[in-house]
Formats: sequence, C-alpha cells, structure tokens
Amino acid sequence: MKQLLDPWQAWLPLLVNFVLSVMFYSFTVRLIPKLTKMFVDANLFGEDLNKKTREKVPEAFGVVTGCMFLIALFLFIPVPFGHFLFQNSDFPHHELVKLVSALVSICCMLLLGFADDVLNLRWRHKLLLPTIASLPLLMVYYVSFNVTTIIIPKPFRFWLGYSVNLGMLYYVYMGMLAVFCTNAINILAGVNGLEAGQSLVIAASIMLFNLCELSGDLWQAHQFSLYFMMPFIATTLALLKFNWYPSKVFVGDTFCYFAGMTFAVVGILGHFSKTMLLFFIPQIINFLYSVPQLFHIIPCPRHRMPRLNKFGLLEASVTYFSFEEIGTLGRFILRICSSFGLARIKQDGKMVEMNNLTLINFLLIKFGPVHEANLTTILLYIQVRL
Amino acid sequence: MKQLLDPWQAWLPLLVNFVLSVMFYSFTVRLIPKLTKMFVDANLFGEDLNKKTREKVPEAFGVVTGCMFLIALFLFIPVPFGHFLFQNSDFPHHELVKLVSALVSICCMLLLGFADDVLNLRWRHKLLLPTIASLPLLMVYYVSFNVTTIIIPKPFRFWLGYSVNLGMLYYVYMGMLAVFCTNAINILAGVNGLEAGQSLVIAASIMLFNLCELSGDLWQAHQFSLYFMMPFIATTLALLKFNWYPSKVFVGDTFCYFAGMTFAVVGILGHFSKTMLLFFIPQIINFLYSVPQLFHIIPCPRHRMPRLNKFGLLEASVTYFSFEEIGTLGRFILRICSSFGLARIKQDGKMVEMNNLTLINFLLIKFGPVHEANLTTILLYIQVRL
Repeated sequence: MKQLLDPWQAWLPLLVNFVLSVMFYSFTVRLIPKLTKMFVDANLFGEDLNKKTREKVPEAFGVVTGCMFLIALFLFIPVPFGHFLFQNSDFPHHELVKLVSALVSICCMLLLGFADDVLNLRWRHKLLLPTIASLPLLMVYYVSFNVTTIIIPKPFRFWLGYSVNLGMLYYVYMGMLAVFCTNAINILAGVNGLEAGQSLVIAASIMLFNLCELSGDLWQAHQFSLYFMMPFIATTLALLKFNWYPSKVFVGDTFCYFAGMTFAVVGILGHFSKTMLLFFIPQIINFLYSVPQLFHIIPCPRHRMPRLNKFGLLEASVTYFSFEEIGTLGRFILRICSSFGLARIKQDGKMVEMNNLTLINFLLIKFGPVHEANLTTILLYIQVRL
Repeated sequence: MKQLLDPWQAWLPLLVNFVLSVMFYSFTVRLIPKLTKMFVDANLFGEDLNKKTREKVPEAFGVVTGCMFLIALFLFIPVPFGHFLFQNSDFPHHELVKLVSALVSICCMLLLGFADDVLNLRWRHKLLLPTIASLPLLMVYYVSFNVTTIIIPKPFRFWLGYSVNLGMLYYVYMGMLAVFCTNAINILAGVNGLEAGQSLVIAASIMLFNLCELSGDLWQAHQFSLYFMMPFIATTLALLKFNWYPSKVFVGDTFCYFAGMTFAVVGILGHFSKTMLLFFIPQIINFLYSVPQLFHIIPCPRHRMPRLNKFGLLEASVTYFSFEEIGTLGRFILRICSSFGLARIKQDGKMVEMNNLTLINFLLIKFGPVHEANLTTILLYIQVRL
C-alpha cells in the first residue's frame, strides 16, 4: 500500500520532535550535575579502575537520561495525531498502539535495568530481563499486526521462493534481537564514554538511514523511528558530556539495556531490523571474539577491561590459566588465535598468559598502549567507518 | 451505545485472568523469600522502629510484586482479543490502546517509585512523580477518547443542567486523582502490613463493585477494571503474607505509588473515579486530619508512626512545640482539636505536647495502647465497614 508523502504530515511532527529534543538536551545537561551527590549517598557509585585517584563516581545515570527520554516522548504522544483531532473520522488507533507499546517496552527495560544496577542481579538474568521487557511489544505485535512473512534476499530466492512465513520463529527472532541489542552494547564496554559513545554512533547511523528512506515508500516506518532516535540522541549527548574521559558519572547497565531496547524497538516496529544489525558490526565482532570466554571455554575473569600501566596509558588485560585447565576445544581455539595472530599468548611451562578476548584488548595488542581518551576515539572511529 | 453481554466474551478473559492471578500468587510467594538477602546486600533495608530487636528488614519489595503484576498483564494482553485474531474484520485497536497505555502509566510509576526508594527523593518530588507517570495515560486519553463531559448528580441539576463539559479541567482532575491515590496510601502507613492491607481492601471493594456492575450497560469498563484488580489482589496477597506483623519485608514507597496508580488508572479508564473515591474514605479522613501537619501549620516530625511503650504495646506518638512557634491559624486549630476531643493536648507553661495528627494515632488516643497486629486489624476493619 503506497502512500504519498504529505509534507505537512511528514515534517511537522519531526520538527516538533526536534525542538523537544533540543529542549530536553538542555534540561538533561542541567539536571545531571545536580543529582550526582544523591546517587553517591544512595550507595550507587563505582570506582574508576583506570585512574590513579580512586574517586567515587556515581553509577547508573542511564536511569536519568532514560526518564528524560520517556518524558519527552510522553509529551510528544499527541503530536503525530494532531490533525486527526479535528476531523472525527478514522483515527489511526493502530499507529497509537505502536507508539504506546514501544514506550511500555522501553519503560519496562529501564525499570529492570535499574533494578539490575541496584540489586546486582546474576548473569542469567541478563538474558531474562530483555525477554520480559520485549513481551509487551511482541504481544501487541501479535494481536495487532502479526506479519511474520519475510522477503528472501535475491541470491536465495531460487531455493526458498520470494518470501517465507516464519510464523512463531519470527517472534523468537524478535525476542532474541532485544536480548542481543541490550547485551551487545553491554559487553563492548569498560572505557570511559564507550557505552554512550557507541550508542550515539549507532543512533546517528539509524537516523541518517531513516532520513534517506523518508522519501521512499515506507516513509511512515522511518518517520516513526525518527520520533525515537532524535530524543535518544539528545539525551545521550547530554550524558556523554559527563561520561567522556575523565568520567564524572557512569552510565550503568541501565543505560546499555535502555539503549539496546530502544534500537530493538525501532528496528522491529520500523521493519528494518536486518539493516539495523549492520550498524552493530563492531558489537558483533566483539561478541564473536568474546565467545570463547563468555561460554567459559577459556577462563574469564570478573573484569576484562584494559588496565592502566605505569606510564598512565592503557594496555590489554590478561587472563592466566594452566594448559590442563582448558579442554580440547580450548586448546584448539588457543592454536587458532596464536597462528592467525588473533591474541597475544605467552607460555611459561604449563601456565598460559593470554589477553582477554575483547575488541578493546585486541586493538591494544595491535597498536600498543594508548591513552584512555584516545582509545575511546579510535573505537568510535571504527564504528563510524563501518 | 448499549452492548449486550455475550457470556463468551465477558467471562472467558476473566477466567483466564483469574487462573493467571492464582499462578502469579504462587510464583510471588516463592520469589519473595529468595530475594530478601539481595535487597539487604544492596543497602535497601530499614529498621522496624516498633520492635524490640532491631533487625535489618529489606525495603521496597513493592518493586517485586509490581514486576510480577506487570508480567502477568503482559502475558494477558492477547487474551481479550483472542476471538478477533481469527476474523480479520474490525480489530478493536482502541481497546488495545486503553490496555497498553494503562500499562505504561503503571510501569512508569513503578520505575519512579523504585527510584524514589533508592535515591530518597525530596518531598516535592512525591507530587511531581505521579504527575509524570500519569502523562502517557492523559495523552492517550486526549488523542483517542477526549470525553470530558461529566454527568451532574441529581441535586445539582437544577443549577448546572444535566451534564457539564469540563474540558481542560477534567485533565487536571485526572492528574490530581493520580497524585491523590498514590499519596493517600503513603500517608496512612507506619504499622506492619497496613499499606498492603488497605490496598487489598480497596482492591477487593473495587472488584466487588465491578462484579455487581458486570450485568449493567457499561460492563466492558468494569471487565477492563477486573483485568487489573485480580492480578493486583493476587500479588498484594503474596506481599502481605510477608509484610504482616511481624514484617519480614517492607513494601516501600514503590508499593504505595504502584498501588495508587493502579487504582487511578482503572478509575479513570473505567469511568468510575467518583465511585472509587468512596473506597478511599479512611484515607481521605486521614489526609484531612493530617493537613495541619502536612502544611506545617503545626510542626511535623520526620516520622509520625506510633511508638512502642514498655509493655510492648503501641501508643500515639507526639510532637512538642512551643506555643509561640505556631501562628494564629495553628492556635485556632489547637483550640478546635482540644474542644472537640480530636487530639490529646498537654500544656506545660509555653510548651505544648500534642499527638501527631494521623488516623492511627487518633485511634490510639481513643482506644488506648494496643498490640501492633491488632491495630492493623482494627484499621482494616474500619476500611471494610466503610
């Protein structure tokens, strides 16, 4: 069903959204410094392990930007429906359902993320929580859209036909997308400003993509995505201002969950989830590189972030283990990494020293120790180039 | 628009909802004891001031029951729309909007309530937070229903006509209803089990009222309310089991906010907000009785809960102030309270000792010191009788 682009209907809500976003950027920038003491008093703080001084840095500030983002979108709800208010005809309730159910999922993820930061939930909950938060979205998708047919990419059409109805599998895919997006941002972390920075780059990429597609057939889906991306960029920019090296506040798991869920929601409801995954390439590489440690084939310490050397520069952190500790699969992975230069491995008798398998450490072994601020910049540059 | 009661459409979703509620009661009862240690470790605990031993009692458990309530309702979303899935005709998107926007408001209130418990926000935020959380509800109400006409009660029709369109004022009324409901439960508190107990009584009253009205013209609104009330009663019952004297867990502001918002939401979307206020009579009395202290006409200490005497019974707590401290209005109130026996006032020179103005203390000065468990029972009995 092709609908022509009506400039009034397409651009006016976006303009209002843009103005709201700018306003909320300035609110958030003013709000964050006022709240730091309250967070430290409430025992919500961490120590920056890569600084010489060990100050208390307030943690979980994602909840502040998340709330500001939600308030901005709450105020925005009536705007896209403005011109329907005066003509009593066919009000697009299905559009409103999309917007509101996206908000439930994001709000729920923010709640669960904050609960995780406060209560320090266990690892397995990190997979459970995004699944719970994506429930309302999937349920609403089920009862009101239930389109589970995907178009097959051209090279495969010979075998699979033009399109395939995935049915139940499509819901599993959407649920896993939410789990992936939230955790992908969470595991590419550990350097000041990286969580907020990478989210900002992804959001900006999505926004550019949406803007290009606004003149296409499916402009409404991309307009919908922009409603979320602009306030997200605004509030995250405010957060990054305080989270950039040297960090005054930490973003917490709250932020990673909230950001990941926002991306998953616009990807799912905007029907461009496969394109969106392209913007996650560094995260995907980091995830694949981390797999041996995440599944404990190679021992995994509590923190895998780079460590500070005596010159004030960051170098790759390492894990120690004995050759006998790891199974056949572990030894095979070790050999592959060593042959292709994928990791720095030192052997001393039966003890093995290996850098922790994260993208950050990989860059550090290739390019040598660098300063923390530069490291974040390099990582964000890679994200932009891809 | 009168719609006939179709037993299939009316009773089947309610039956499913009932079964879900029973299941979630048993989940919640098992979940709560497992989480107590996690809350204490996270610094979320309080001391029970009315016990001889000062143990650490985990605080803010409302967030657990709130989450369970939300999950139950997320799973319930497709049920009322089951029979529309197989006939591709006119899907009632406006009904889905109601359900989903109610969930956004409750979820947002739960998030803000939990943030309040963790961060100890200031008093003025207690008025701001429910307003924020009711925003999505009001916005959705505005764009999709926008019925702001109220029917005038019979005695006033002579002057005001049959109905009046309140317009903007109706939204102010709805916003204030949310603020009232959340805070009314919060200020009638301080005894083990009272917050959860009174919410349970109110919810049960609403449920009975809904059940009676199910055979009436507006049965759909009451069915909608029941969808929320049954899981709410189930999860609150599980909470009360641990919150009853002697409390193993405290409910926290989180619970008061969450419960109040749930009531406000069903009152607003079920169009029986005025009837619902009748179920809040003890809370209203308590609020009116508290007004002199809430507005600091009479000095208000940090805690106004009853205190434990040497016999292990509770007696009314008091506030001390000098006669000169309070203004003319304060002295006038003092005289009224003393003449009508509304408070126990002792004067010693210029110093005045007066019981704190809460319903709980009022009962204690009238009926003498009682045991904590009995006090809660008396208060809940009053709530039921009214």
